[in-house]
Order: sequence, then C-alpha cells, then structure tokens
Amino acid sequence: MATLSMDNIHHAAEVLKEVARKTDLIYAPKLSTNATVWLKTENLQVTGSFKVRGAYYKISQLSPEELSRGVIACSAGNHAQGVALGAQKRGARAVICMPDIAPIAKIEATKSYGAEVHLVPGTYDDASAYAQDLCKKEGMTFVHPFDDPDVIAGQGTVGLEILEQMPDVDAVLVPIGGGGLISGVAYAIKHLKPDCKVYGVQAAEAASMKRSIEAQDKLTLSTANTFADGIAVKHPGDLTFELVNQYVDGIVTVTEDEIAAAVLFLIEQRKLVCEGAGAVSVAAMIYDKIPELHGKKVCCLLSGGNIDVNILSRVIYRGLLASGRRAGIRLSLPDKPGQLASVSNIISKCGGNVINVNYGPSGMDTALATCVLSLELETRDFEQIGAIHEALEAAGYHLIRD
Amino acid sequence: MATLSMDNIHHAAEVLKEVARKTDLIYAPKLSTNATVWLKTENLQVTGSFKVRGAYYKISQLSPEELSRGVIACSAGNHAQGVALGAQKRGARAVICMPDIAPIAKIEATKSYGAEVHLVPGTYDDASAYAQDLCKKEGMTFVHPFDDPDVIAGQGTVGLEILEQMPDVDAVLVPIGGGGLISGVAYAIKHLKPDCKVYGVQAAEAASMKRSIEAQDKLTLSTANTFADGIAVKHPGDLTFELVNQYVDGIVTVTEDEIAAAVLFLIEQRKLVCEGAGAVSVAAMIYDKIPELHGKKVCCLLSGGNIDVNILSRVIYRGLLASGRRAGIRLSLPDKPGQLASVSNIISKCGGNVINVNYGPSGMDTALATCVLSLELETRDFEQIGAIHEALEAAGYHLIRD
Repeated sequence: MATLSMDNIHHAAEVLKEVARKTDLIYAPKLSTNATVWLKTENLQVTGSFKVRGAYYKISQLSPEELSRGVIACSAGNHAQGVALGAQKRGARAVICMPDIAPIAKIEATKSYGAEVHLVPGTYDDASAYAQDLCKKEGMTFVHPFDDPDVIAGQGTVGLEILEQMPDVDAVLVPIGGGGLISGVAYAIKHLKPDCKVYGVQAAEAASMKRSIEAQDKLTLSTANTFADGIAVKHPGDLTFELVNQYVDGIVTVTEDEIAAAVLFLIEQRKLVCEGAGAVSVAAMIYDKIPELHGKKVCCLLSGGNIDVNILSRVIYRGLLASGRRAGIRLSLPDKPGQLASVSNIISKCGGNVINVNYGPSGMDTALATCVLSLELETRDFEQIGAIHEALEAAGYHLIRD
Repeated sequence: MATLSMDNIHHAAEVLKEVARKTDLIYAPKLSTNATVWLKTENLQVTGSFKVRGAYYKISQLSPEELSRGVIACSAGNHAQGVALGAQKRGARAVICMPDIAPIAKIEATKSYGAEVHLVPGTYDDASAYAQDLCKKEGMTFVHPFDDPDVIAGQGTVGLEILEQMPDVDAVLVPIGGGGLISGVAYAIKHLKPDCKVYGVQAAEAASMKRSIEAQDKLTLSTANTFADGIAVKHPGDLTFELVNQYVDGIVTVTEDEIAAAVLFLIEQRKLVCEGAGAVSVAAMIYDKIPELHGKKVCCLLSGGNIDVNILSRVIYRGLLASGRRAGIRLSLPDKPGQLASVSNIISKCGGNVINVNYGPSGMDTALATCVLSLELETRDFEQIGAIHEALEAAGYHLIRD
C-alpha cells in the first residue's frame, strides 16, 4: 500500500503533465472588500474538475498486470470522468457504475472517454455495492474517489501549483466532500509553506467532515441534501479524516443560498461557470465566514464546473429574483375591457419588460367580478420594481401581495 | 497622428503588462470534429473583454498635458469599462457617455473604475453627439472604440500572444464589430506568420464589414438587431476597413440561434461564460462555416464575457428547449376530478419533472366541458419527451400540438 509523501506529490506533478492542465490563477477584485482574493480555476481543468489528477495518478501507478485487468469506480459525477479519461490515456478498461437515475449528460460524458457505464437500479449505495462485487469477481482495481494515498497525492499537485503561482499566499480555501482534495493540498502546503493557512468549506447541509472533526470521531450523516452534489458526502474517509485533522486549520460551512449567490457572482463578475461544490470557497469569502482572513492574500480553490444547465438556470433565476432583476406581480382587475392593455402600458412606461402572462377569473378570496393577472417581469433593480408597484397603485390597481 | 506598425504593437505589449492579463489558451476537444480548436479566452481578461488593451494603450500614449484634460468615450459596453480602467490606472479623468437606457450593471461597472458616467436621453447616436460636443468644449481626448491606430495596436497584442501560445496555429477566427480587434490581430499575424489565415466572423444581422468588403465600399446598415450587442455596429471604420481589406482572408456570418448554441456550448463544455459577440468565432466552427479549416489547427478568439444575466438565462432556456431538456406540453382534459393527479403520475413515472403548471377552462377551439392543462417540464432528452407523449396518449389524453 502506498503512503502519502511529498515525493509522492512531486512525482504526481511530473506524471500529470501528460494529461492535466496547469490551470490559471485569476484575480477577483470585487469578491471581497476584506481580503485580496485569487481563484485557482480547476473548473477549467480537463473533464471540468480536479478529479482527473488523483484518478490519473492512481491509474498510472498500477502494474502492467493490474492495468490489464482494468479499473472500476462508482460515481455519477466528476470522479467518473476523471477515471474514464485516466484509463483511456493508459489504455486500460474502465467500468463506471452509476445509479440509473444519473443525468444523461454525465453518462454521455463518461462514455465519451471510452468507459463502460453500468447503470445500476436504485441509489448510489446500490451502485457502490454492485461495483464492489464486480471488482472482486473480475479482479479489477477499485479507484476510490478520495480515501487513497495515490488519489490524494494527485490532488495535492493543486497545492504545488498554488504555491508556485502565488508564492505570497496567506491562506487557501478548499471545498470538502470526502476530503481528498483538501488532504492533498493541505499536506503539500503545510510541508512547503507551514505559515500558510488551509481552511475547508462544506455545504451546511452536508457537513460530515466538520462535524466529525468537532466530535473527533468519524460520523455518518443521515442526509446530505445540497445542490452542491459534488460534495454531498455523508461520511469522511479514514485517511482523509486523519489528514484533515492534522493539517487543516479550520472548517466553515455555507448555506444553499450562499452557494447559489457565489455561482452567480462567478458567472457575472469573472465569466466562470462553477458547480455548487466548486463555488463554496467563494461563498465563504463573500459571506465573510473566516474573519481571520481580513487583510490577507487568499486563494479560493474552484474545484469544478460540471453543473447541470437545468440547475444552472435555476440558480440564475434565483439570483435574478434576489437582486431585483426579475419580479413577479399579481393584480386583481375588474373584469372589463382594456385592463390588460392599461396595465401593460404602465409597466412598459416604467421600463419593465413582461416575459410571462397568466390571466383568469379570480379565486374565492376576491370579488366575483374580478380577474387575476399574474405577470413575470424583467426588471433593472428593486427601485424599478417599487416604481412599477407605485405606478400601478396610483392608477387604481390592486396589487395582491403574498 | 500615430500610424500602425509592428513596433507599435510590440510596444503596446510591453505597456499592457501593467494592466492586462495574458489570458489562457484552452483546448476545446468537443467543439468540432473537423478541426483541432483552441480558445483564446479574452472573456477572462480584466473588465471581461479585450477592449481594455486598446483603450489603455491609447491613453498611455497621451502627453501629460492631454492626460490632464481627461478622456471621453461613448459606449454602454466593453469599451466603456476599458477606457474607465485605463484612465484610472493613468490617473486621468474619464467621462463615459451612455444612452440613458443602458443596463444598470454596465453603468455600475463603469463607475466602479472611477469614471463619470453621463446618461444621455435617446439612442446611442444621441449619446455619441453629446460626447463629441463635450469633447470639443472641454478639450478632452476622444477614445474611439476601434478606428484609431493606437487602439488597434493595443488589440493587436492578442495576436502576439496567440502566436506565442500556439506557434503552429493554422488559422485564427476573430469576431468583427467595428473591426478594431481583427485589424490589430491580422496585422500582427500576417507580419509574423504570413501563412496563418485570419478569418472574421460577424452576426448575420449586423454584417456591415462583410457587406462593405464585398461592395468594396463602406456601407451603413439600416439596422443591427443582434443579441450579440458587442458587435452590433452599422458602419465599419475608415482605418479598419482598409486593414481588413488588406490582411483578412475572409468573413463569414452566423445566425442568432447559432450564436446562442455557441454560448451554451462554452458554458456546458468549457465552463466559460461568453457574451454573444464573444462566441461568434465558436459558432462559426460548430456550424462549419469555413470548410477550408478541415484538418487544421484553429484558434477561436473569445472576445468578451459581459453578457447580461437576463439574456444569458434566455440563451440557456432556448438551448434547453433545442436540446430536449425542457419541454412544454398542452393537454385538453375532461373537466372531472382526478385528472391533474393522473397526468402528473404518468409524467413522473416517465422521469419528467414538472416545473410550471397552468390549468383552466378551454378556449373556443375545444369542447365546452374540457379544461386545458399547460405544463412545463424538465426532461432528459427528446426520447424521454416522446415517451411522455406516448404514455399520455396511451392513457387516453389528448395532446394539443401547436
């Protein structure tokens, strides 16, 4: 069994030149007024996340005989694509087991790297059990998503790059799911620059590592309901628990709304697409979760960008509502001609843009001869929404407020 | 009056080290099956577009006396932010004139670099006339968005970087609005690597340069209605017309839907946010507009990422519909209890996810005792949508097809 060492991580950095990109470090001036923040953009890594580093390094260390029997993994996410690409580059068979409810985009992306995808009915745990069975039966090598020293060494190369690209970094913020990424990054950074702080960030709805470290015992969460599916892990790894315990300076959590706001910030301000898991480090800075960082030079690690566009469009929608750039209005109208035209005129004079209309007889809560008009508007800001409300009320219309 | 030269462009590259990023070149494996495509990511430039290069170099070449009188520009877009940041870095006053309908996000971004924003009632032309007046009155220097040799020299530095980052490049595709970017890039590339092809890409709805080159006469379009507002220019510049005529190998156009698909591709496949104008080069490759590029090594220049999130969410929405991941269904239902539950059950069994419901009495085109149910669904692909249609019809429901 391999163990983790700096030699290991430096070796991984050499091996990874064959497949991984040295992703850019990008300054993010408007992210925080309290600190100077740079972004390590592993969302721009090949396969759209850092996962290819650990998976490829693990596979590169297998013997020819092990390689000939192939590798197997259980993942519907970034690890799946990392293992698939890694195996393809090394000419090994790869079997990826996924629950059969996996999104078609992830299945197709994994297949595009030449992997066999086995869709297993049921949950992630069912797929995992199936993978373990198949692994034993066929003598394949199981590539764990995080609890493996070679995988952790591969992820640790991100730490080397951060120190090279930003030698004066004071602190690095790293997303935590199972803990593989932060274990490697913290190990590398604490060995090379011990005064640099390393903080972990988890979704509040899936804070398994944070709670385990606090309890000094590996806990299993009953649920992990976060849209940041890349870090929805219920139980820390054995090895990652030890490494986080030893090398990480603290773990903070962020809420779902904070993660969504971070994703929207990165789109609007930095033109970067991040998945929820990838943006938790940014959320922690925006919402000032670590006051010790005031005045410091901080690197936020963006771990991945594989967000489903359906989810992305919901995140944008929620962000638009939250910033006054989308608004819903409901009016009760007298059921007589010309009302719809009149309301539309008022809104358009205020500069609002109607994008959805629903008009029909009122329910039981309003007078019989009235209709209810529901509108969705594109707006500029809350001030404009207020002006539209006022103009409608000044014209005698009754706004229905929920 | 400055003239354009290679010395000029090399000098600009030196000066720009103070403010611009050397943006990353990123491989895009799935973009085209016909060619090997790399992306020059000027959407990740400071201010979110290449414009800061030309604007800053122009301002850097002003005399102390000119600087003391300040600079002025007319733009509601990327040029505004470029000039504002350039002036701020050189300690000069900057006045940016915009039509008063400019989006608040652009106004705020420009103000954030310390510029004075003058909102002029009316159109872009009104704002431009106002700016010219103020410029004369106050003796400021007008920074033209494209038709200026120093501005073009600044944009030409993108060409130097492409040749350095991709020495074996066969062809570069560049968006064209007024033509400043492609003039600088083509000038640099044709002087340093004459066998490298340079193609321009315009929105079909605003093909002023293409039509002018074809006519060998500078034409003015009556309209320029494209959501790629960064290249919605009705008339080429004098200098840019000459430079494009001399150095550019061809100009192709792309439709609005092709641009939208390119924006969605960059989000999903490369985790990059591009505005419409920024993505036209990618649209040209996806839709194979230049067959001469088959088998070649191509660099697509992504010129900018400043897309309004309202527009972005529409682009995503259209892309979801176009790829079968969002669907609308309308049914006429008998007006009796249990129908809504029954339909919902069928859809959920097929794996569809209902996100919007509208239910009410039917209009005049259907039987009196029926209701119309309109649903919006999140779906996986067209196959799943077909399965939902079939299951509903098999259960006796009547789909209303438009």
